[in-house]
Amino acid sequence: MTTDERLQEYYGRLQSRHLGPLWDSLQSIMTKEPKPRAIPYLWKWRDVHDFVMESGQLVTPERGGERRVVFFRNPGLEALEPWGWGSLTHTLYAGVQLLLPGEKAPSHRHNQNAIRFILEGSGAYTVVEGERVYMEEGDFLITPAGLWHDHVHEGDQPMLWLDCLDIPLVYELGVTFFEAHPEFNQPVTRPDNFSVDRYSVAGLRPLQDRENRYAPQAVFKWSQTKLALDGLSNQDPDPVDGYAVEYVNPATGEAAGHTIGAMMQKLPSNFHGQAHRHVHGAIYHVTRGEGYSVIGGVRFDWQKGDTFVIPNWAWHEHVNTGPSDAYLFSTNDLPVMEALHLERSERYTEGHQAISERFTGVESSVL
Amino acid sequence: MTTDERLQEYYGRLQSRHLGPLWDSLQSIMTKEPKPRAIPYLWKWRDVHDFVMESGQLVTPERGGERRVVFFRNPGLEALEPWGWGSLTHTLYAGVQLLLPGEKAPSHRHNQNAIRFILEGSGAYTVVEGERVYMEEGDFLITPAGLWHDHVHEGDQPMLWLDCLDIPLVYELGVTFFEAHPEFNQPVTRPDNFSVDRYSVAGLRPLQDRENRYAPQAVFKWSQTKLALDGLSNQDPDPVDGYAVEYVNPATGEAAGHTIGAMMQKLPSNFHGQAHRHVHGAIYHVTRGEGYSVIGGVRFDWQKGDTFVIPNWAWHEHVNTGPSDAYLFSTNDLPVMEALHLERSERYTEGHQAISERFTGVESSVL
Amino acid sequence: MTTDERLQEYYGRLQSRHLGPLWDSLQSIMTKEPKPRAIPYLWKWRDVHDFVMESGQLVTPERGGERRVVFFRNPGLEALEPWGWGSLTHTLYAGVQLLLPGEKAPSHRHNQNAIRFILEGSGAYTVVEGERVYMEEGDFLITPAGLWHDHVHEGDQPMLWLDCLDIPLVYELGVTFFEAHPEFNQPVTRPDNFSVDRYSVAGLRPLQDRENRYAPQAVFKWSQTKLALDGLSNQDPDPVDGYAVEYVNPATGEAAGHTIGAMMQKLPSNFHGQAHRHVHGAIYHVTRGEGYSVIGGVRFDWQKGDTFVIPNWAWHEHVNTGPSDAYLFSTNDLPVMEALHLERSERYTEGHQAISERFTGVESSVL
Amino acid sequence: MTTDERLQEYYGRLQSRHLGPLWDSLQSIMTKEPKPRAIPYLWKWRDVHDFVMESGQLVTPERGGERRVVFFRNPGLEALEPWGWGSLTHTLYAGVQLLLPGEKAPSHRHNQNAIRFILEGSGAYTVVEGERVYMEEGDFLITPAGLWHDHVHEGDQPMLWLDCLDIPLVYELGVTFFEAHPEFNQPVTRPDNFSVDRYSVAGLRPLQDRENRYAPQAVFKWSQTKLALDGLSNQDPDPVDGYAVEYVNPATGEAAGHTIGAMMQKLPSNFHGQAHRHVHGAIYHVTRGEGYSVIGGVRFDWQKGDTFVIPNWAWHEHVNTGPSDAYLFSTNDLPVMEALHLERSERYTEGHQAISERFTGVESSVL
Ligand SMILES: [Fe+2]
Ligand SMILES: [Fe+2]
Ligand SMILES: [Fe+2]
Ligand SMILES: [Fe+2]
Ligand SMILES: [Fe+2]
Ligand SMILES: [Fe+2]
Ligand SMILES: [Fe+2]
Ligand SMILES: [Fe+2]
Repeated sequence: MTTDERLQEYYGRLQSRHLGPLWDSLQSIMTKEPKPRAIPYLWKWRDVHDFVMESGQLVTPERGGERRVVFFRNPGLEALEPWGWGSLTHTLYAGVQLLLPGEKAPSHRHNQNAIRFILEGSGAYTVVEGERVYMEEGDFLITPAGLWHDHVHEGDQPMLWLDCLDIPLVYELGVTFFEAHPEFNQPVTRPDNFSVDRYSVAGLRPLQDRENRYAPQAVFKWSQTKLALDGLSNQDPDPVDGYAVEYVNPATGEAAGHTIGAMMQKLPSNFHGQAHRHVHGAIYHVTRGEGYSVIGGVRFDWQKGDTFVIPNWAWHEHVNTGPSDAYLFSTNDLPVMEALHLERSERYTEGHQAISERFTGVESSVL
Repeated sequence: MTTDERLQEYYGRLQSRHLGPLWDSLQSIMTKEPKPRAIPYLWKWRDVHDFVMESGQLVTPERGGERRVVFFRNPGLEALEPWGWGSLTHTLYAGVQLLLPGEKAPSHRHNQNAIRFILEGSGAYTVVEGERVYMEEGDFLITPAGLWHDHVHEGDQPMLWLDCLDIPLVYELGVTFFEAHPEFNQPVTRPDNFSVDRYSVAGLRPLQDRENRYAPQAVFKWSQTKLALDGLSNQDPDPVDGYAVEYVNPATGEAAGHTIGAMMQKLPSNFHGQAHRHVHGAIYHVTRGEGYSVIGGVRFDWQKGDTFVIPNWAWHEHVNTGPSDAYLFSTNDLPVMEALHLERSERYTEGHQAISERFTGVESSVL
Repeated sequence: MTTDERLQEYYGRLQSRHLGPLWDSLQSIMTKEPKPRAIPYLWKWRDVHDFVMESGQLVTPERGGERRVVFFRNPGLEALEPWGWGSLTHTLYAGVQLLLPGEKAPSHRHNQNAIRFILEGSGAYTVVEGERVYMEEGDFLITPAGLWHDHVHEGDQPMLWLDCLDIPLVYELGVTFFEAHPEFNQPVTRPDNFSVDRYSVAGLRPLQDRENRYAPQAVFKWSQTKLALDGLSNQDPDPVDGYAVEYVNPATGEAAGHTIGAMMQKLPSNFHGQAHRHVHGAIYHVTRGEGYSVIGGVRFDWQKGDTFVIPNWAWHEHVNTGPSDAYLFSTNDLPVMEALHLERSERYTEGHQAISERFTGVESSVL
Repeated sequence: MTTDERLQEYYGRLQSRHLGPLWDSLQSIMTKEPKPRAIPYLWKWRDVHDFVMESGQLVTPERGGERRVVFFRNPGLEALEPWGWGSLTHTLYAGVQLLLPGEKAPSHRHNQNAIRFILEGSGAYTVVEGERVYMEEGDFLITPAGLWHDHVHEGDQPMLWLDCLDIPLVYELGVTFFEAHPEFNQPVTRPDNFSVDRYSVAGLRPLQDRENRYAPQAVFKWSQTKLALDGLSNQDPDPVDGYAVEYVNPATGEAAGHTIGAMMQKLPSNFHGQAHRHVHGAIYHVTRGEGYSVIGGVRFDWQKGDTFVIPNWAWHEHVNTGPSDAYLFSTNDLPVMEALHLERSERYTEGHQAISERFTGVESSVL
């Protein structure tokens, strides 16, 4: 036998005993830089919207299925079973939920954290651990791990929102817990507008929340977010991210969504952000405006409602090509990277990337 | 010699060698419950105001004297040298500062923390580490330890505010540092309204403040504080403190004033709070309204502008006797007690104290 | 079309657009309890040892391959590409490294944390960030993320040790970094026995380490570990884990291996531990003695040198059937679960599990 | 009236209303650098020992007096009432306690933290929250705030130790709590040598102490401390402090004495440490050897048993003039300064101070 044949024979025996040779696999397992399987990708709102509305005719939200959501599957991750674990990034699931007038979605709890960003409609509310929160376009809501939650729609128009959870993270760790509430909907035990009334203003904490700091603010209203960004806009924009605010727990300064970071950016007209990259991955949803982002040298054009993903360690920059302010909502796994001391970031020396290609959808998305 | 004579002779020799007998002093040094030397006391605004205005004719704020402030001296602490260390509680100094139109107070820094609560006037600003902050009635400002600060008055009416610092604490620890700025006033390096523009809304932190969290919010405007209390007022009041919000660092949830806690309470008309006590001491300043507080069984009547002190571990309760909401600003050393793990508190079982006496000023304040 | 046909047609269209229906996949993605793909398994030392020694004739540790390690592949995880990511649990890689007399393994660093537990031999040392640490049987060493490390063998017998890294975690997060040192071996810059001389005794920290607390103790000697367990043995054993000590950073009390927990257990003769389960997974290596563990109702018999794995949330209990003390080294991902607030645990009500099956190797390991 | 007369008249009126003028007192209250009232001082062991032994003939430890201790009164602080608050530094009390064969000291608890360093004798034990700890020369013990503690002497020689508590700090804050145990001595509930058996080795924490970290190690044996210092002595000494270890909580790395820092230094023969200063104050007790310290330019000669004090921010350096190693035990308020963010330190540029004077006791100590 040649040396190589001896090695192959040895590898075969190793494999049969559930063992492996590090020297032969180290370079694929321990890459010099991150090689995420997640790829940059973009979904057009028209498509997503149509699919979601169609689901309204096909299924109802009921015990077992629990929620009527069409979720995004990162083409680089969808081979994973089951269902690509619903991965949009390596740690995050995201989807668009539809609740029709008069519908209810059952109450449950799980050890995944969830955040919600409202896209269309009004008149529906979610109940989180006894607190009823009405939802309006642009609102940001949190459903921290372990809290009961369900939804009720009292309005007369379809209600759509973006859900984001750390499902792939918890699934991959092998530690998922999920529990259905004994009743279809949990009882409401707190006065309406509980959070809104308690948390309106920066730096003022209700005295009673000194001891009780687990996710005290259930909702961040769009009108407030708008106000905060308008305030910031009197100053210079960040060269990379424009005017940007993070949603945080006002009692601790930690990410409002616990393992899930979230922010809202406002890019003024003609803003062309500089490129940077970071270890954490991000999911973007265009709230208003039109423009493009360059991710790893590929140009992704976007407008209101589109969703796109920035994988870990990919260079990226954002450009507003429209006549007015663009607003980008995004969510990320920065808190996970920080908790595990894995975060790094760097600026792109030349400022802007050269554009090698323009993303055109399914066809060009094969890497 | 009798045994007692032998002991006295022994004590005399001990004393001459700078030694002491614990068995003879333990009961005075280690009391069963706190016996603060600070006493409950109240100053009427009319008096304080007149003294402060008179000082405007006698002295100017200049390098060396630095500030034109009339400070409160707790009758139980004023024997301490020098000047009772300016003690209103065991750890806190407080006084009323006057800045006249056209005046400037020089720039300095120190290792005491300071907070300011604006009482009258407008058109003056303070500069803290390059950030100019205009001051209006009801605003709360912070000047954390180590930051340069000075004041300039561009308006046309006298400007009065309450200062509170942890001077007695730092003095008693024997570790005071103070430094004058090489220039009379430091240069302004940040855009106007820097803090106000960055921090308006609960739970939204400017992205750029993720890394830079030392005292990011320099001012808490009265209009915002009012808004927060109005929001809270849609819910049930706290049985002890009514509607109350603490001033906190919005990036961390810690006390905005670092070692100095501060809060604003709104007592609705006819509110009669239940009694409690806590290890930390507090200084109250009546922002609006009229009523009384019962401290250790003594009734202290108050109205707008009055200042009173609640010593450590004293029972206390607050009552609004006026036709409209009363607002009480207060400051305390809770952060010190928490940092040293000394805080405790308890509710008064009977709810309200029996009133044994009514405070009438200097005469009755002798213990 | 029937409803079901319509749904299937819809699902096909969804899939082609990289979208998915939550209602149809929620029950597989969000299980009621953890369903880790990792399975309980055990490798006999004789097998592993032979494979490792054979590798000594086939390959050398050199730049590129870096290390001569035979690693364990959990049968439930090996379908993952590449190489099952070297997963023994969902987050942890482990393998047995061989260094022959006179050999050197090159210097590199990576953002995975590593720990090492020495199995056989002496005379070799590892250099971690300029500190040379000699390795002897039973020693526990750490190589925290980001520190340069390489190995040199000056002795005359083969040196074997167990390596454990958080490779699968970091790989799955998509954020791996790896860097080769410009030289084959880094220079030694610290005196020999640096850690041993600085950290011997509980509760005494070198004054100079007050500020410098990143992984101050590079090695935990077996003689010390033995001493600690002997001390504990004067007290009652823990009903589940016997006498057990965790390897922690003596300057902070955190896990010595950062994301990797590790402990040494001593089970006295006839000890039959009670069953419990916890969210974190664990890898066990038998240091001394003989006995068995019951994992999920299956009995795994073990003796010195064997390696076995306890998946997340699996019931397990340990039994010493030998005449003398058994020592079990183990490593786990508890620090990850704690950092992400995912940890839970519970005791088995009946104390001991019923044994349904006895593990006999490859054949019976198919679940 | 002249301006000055007007001011004096005004000051008089202010004073009568319990008010004060900041501009006239700022320079005494807010000094450029710390001006602690504590002064450097030294007590000879012969004196202290004789006084302590004499107390053994005069009093017994009994309920009310509680402990037979002769405490040190810093000459700069003894004017304070009562009893100078037992202040040796601004925050710390220290004294020498005597327990005679057969004696018992009653059980109590308080919100001051205490540490103990054993000077002479054996056969006595202290009980802390049910844990009996035998005391031998050189041992360091902790009695954290809130835990019941009492002493029993079963040996046949007098037992002496140094006590240190944060009495002046807690007294000055006005928040002292003290409580006598309903029984004279509390029951012993833990096995003997509980701490010693659980905590012997650096970096190994009993698994069961993962959740229970409040002061897990009650005693630090001299033999262990010696071992730790001998290990360190294989390396270079710190230029200021020689070989020095801090007593820390092995489960957290925080000061073992909570608010009270403590360390043991070993100065090799001929060691002449460089000068430095720091905000925190310190109390030194000479455990072995002879030498001198220069504090603020004054030379304090010391030998075994002597006690001396280094006030806040005073320059100081230590010199061993004897033929063998000198050991200095010391205790300090560094944890308080750190908790309040007040700590600073600096090295003396010239390395050693010029000596202006030699301390000769009472006579020269008048400042
Ligand atoms: Fe949910
Ligand atoms: Fe980014
Ligand atoms: Fe100041
Ligand atoms: Fe109160
Ligand atoms: Fe490595
Ligand atoms: Fe376990
Ligand atoms: Fe005591
Ligand atoms: Fe020092």
